[in-house]
Amino acid sequence: MTPAVTRAYYEDLAVGDAASSAESFEVLRDEIVAFAQRWDPQPFHLDEAAARDSIFGGLTASAAHVFAIQCRLAVSVEPRVALLAGLGNDGLELLLPTRPGDRLRLTRRILEKRESKTKPDRGIVQIEHELINQRGEIVCRAVGRVMIARRPG
Amino acid sequence: MTPAVTRAYYEDLAVGDAASSAESFEVLRDEIVAFAQRWDPQPFHLDEAAARDSIFGGLTASAAHVFAIQCRLAVSVEPRVALLAGLGNDGLELLLPTRPGDRLRLTRRILEKRESKTKPDRGIVQIEHELINQRGEIVCRAVGRVMIARRPG
Repeated sequence: MTPAVTRAYYEDLAVGDAASSAESFEVLRDEIVAFAQRWDPQPFHLDEAAARDSIFGGLTASAAHVFAIQCRLAVSVEPRVALLAGLGNDGLELLLPTRPGDRLRLTRRILEKRESKTKPDRGIVQIEHELINQRGEIVCRAVGRVMIARRPG
Repeated sequence: MTPAVTRAYYEDLAVGDAASSAESFEVLRDEIVAFAQRWDPQPFHLDEAAARDSIFGGLTASAAHVFAIQCRLAVSVEPRVALLAGLGNDGLELLLPTRPGDRLRLTRRILEKRESKTKPDRGIVQIEHELINQRGEIVCRAVGRVMIARRPG
């Protein structure tokens, strides 16, 4: 509502539009462990020795941690979007492990959009997100749904 | 591999089986804000005043935070399962907001299982998770896929 800030509304997102995060996110060993201690205490997220014996052969970030990184980078792609709510996702695939020292960036593409049937001030947008590491490999692909305000007036 | 610990393997999970977390998880205001500051800095997760003006009318936990709580409670439901890897999900729906003071518990049900086509030591299990608040309302429903070790020998 502040006139000086240009907001991005439902009308500003076009199906097919793609964008990438300007910044990348560095995945830190200590944060992998701290996140897992609180949220996903599996040995292969917590302990180097257990992780060496796992199918990954080393420490990896929790799925919840990877999703959190995706959310953070999504905000950096679209800091001005008039987001009303996240609604969840229509699938999230962990394609490769995320490891200490990885640098992730995010690309997103608008898949679909529709106006709300009941509320004229908002619409639902379906967005594909890909997290890409420093080698150009896609480590996570997800299709999310968000509710975005329509342009007022 | 420690004989004193009874592990749960792929063979021990039957399609249709349901289980619930013994513990519940209390959602704390300060953790909602701290999680959002790091991972999902949206005004309605960070700031009481902005949250009051949002469609939720008050602070709510980030989708990433809700998923993290689900992961944590999933470990408490199945602490002994021979989990090899999380593979992602086939959908996650945020049905109601999660607010400070909520107490969440988790129920899970095995939807499907199949042996790996290429690796005889593992199988893929599809699991439905429901996070339920202190009023018995389902706040999040998700269908995850995990890789679980088959019983050795």
